[in-house]
Amino acid sequence: MENKSTMVVFNGDLDKAIASFIIATGSAAMGNQVTMFFTFWGLNILRKNESVPVKKTFLEGMFGLMMPRGPENLGISKMNMGGLGSKMMKYIMRKKNIATLQELMETAKELDVKIIACAMSMDVLGITEAELIDGIEYAGVATYLAEADQSRLNLFI
Amino acid sequence: MENKSTMVVFNGDLDKAIASFIIATGSAAMGNQVTMFFTFWGLNILRKNESVPVKKTFLEGMFGLMMPRGPENLGISKMNMGGLGSKMMKYIMRKKNIATLQELMETAKELDVKIIACAMSMDVLGITEAELIDGIEYAGVATYLAEADQSRLNLFI
Amino acid sequence: MENKSTMVVFNGDLDKAIASFIIATGSAAMGNQVTMFFTFWGLNILRKNESVPVKKTFLEGMFGLMMPRGPENLGISKMNMGGLGSKMMKYIMRKKNIATLQELMETAKELDVKIIACAMSMDVLGITEAELIDGIEYAGVATYLAEADQSRLNLFI
Repeated sequence: MENKSTMVVFNGDLDKAIASFIIATGSAAMGNQVTMFFTFWGLNILRKNESVPVKKTFLEGMFGLMMPRGPENLGISKMNMGGLGSKMMKYIMRKKNIATLQELMETAKELDVKIIACAMSMDVLGITEAELIDGIEYAGVATYLAEADQSRLNLFI
Repeated sequence: MENKSTMVVFNGDLDKAIASFIIATGSAAMGNQVTMFFTFWGLNILRKNESVPVKKTFLEGMFGLMMPRGPENLGISKMNMGGLGSKMMKYIMRKKNIATLQELMETAKELDVKIIACAMSMDVLGITEAELIDGIEYAGVATYLAEADQSRLNLFI
Repeated sequence: MENKSTMVVFNGDLDKAIASFIIATGSAAMGNQVTMFFTFWGLNILRKNESVPVKKTFLEGMFGLMMPRGPENLGISKMNMGGLGSKMMKYIMRKKNIATLQELMETAKELDVKIIACAMSMDVLGITEAELIDGIEYAGVATYLAEADQSRLNLFI
């Protein structure tokens, strides 16, 4: 068992994304090697803000249109109220000088947190590499499991 | 610490069910002994597709009617849109030759993944053994905790 | 690795709260030292039932008003139907003599389960110490991670 922490980030809600990056950066700051495996709706956290022109099937296009693009556009898991709850939470966090999701993601990069996008989920949801942020890796569940088996802390978020 | 993985499957959504069985079969294929403990809404994943005639109280009957019966009828945790999202996801996965939940569950059985239905949750939701698929075990939280304490990988899904 | 179990309780749903306290009390009864770290909506589980007069900003007040106050008022994560599902579940559990959330929380205290409220989440949601139940601790993610790193069982609920 090494000083490793591994997280599956399945949900793409702003609040759960913030929680996962606070745990990830905190764990990395304590000297652990942290891996975050983004799968299903969690992939939306890694999407670029702007629309990227990629060829998609009709259904892939529909999923792509309906899913939020990146940290700016995520809803919260409770009391989202059509985006109002998400706006309220972001406003309060800015007022209180709490790091935003974007800042937490920058910190994660600086602390060498390994960010992996789940290749199978990308295939299912029709998300291409061009649509996701730079500096991340692409892999399958075997890669996740190899990391998880060596990790002291494992979470599914 | 042995080569064991243990998961609590609490949510009964198709997408989370697929994720849990992908992790379970992957971990079992790597040589780990995997236990999945199905509790609360997770029990719906284990329900037989057909209606099973069992005597229930009025409230148990209501829960039973409103909850989905097995892999065919599960919704997804986001963008379900009255079942349309779930249909879209299943359609895409079939098109791309990705294993269905039913196939993943078959593979789990072949790999000797231990599937346990939480006896207390069955009691609360009024689900009887006759309504669940064959080849599973029934136990309480003590059994889960005994497995979890020996497991390298623990997840709550 | 010591005989420790650590849980992040992120969701504030009655069913997930019950699941987390059943696991916590079960693990403590088996001789483990259990820590529960309540963050975001999980804080609602720790709120007192009655309204506590505290000075809040407008937005904090709105969050405070809309979020449920304590075990009596939590909804369930599926089929809540405006609180009806939650009432049904509580009614059935009482009928079957299954411990209520309040009783499970009492048992947790008796078994010395450590309950920590996440200070940052309290700040974001505008929840003050006066609004939460007695006998709990207040700390940040570093405290959680220090416990988690020593724990055999880690869950995010």
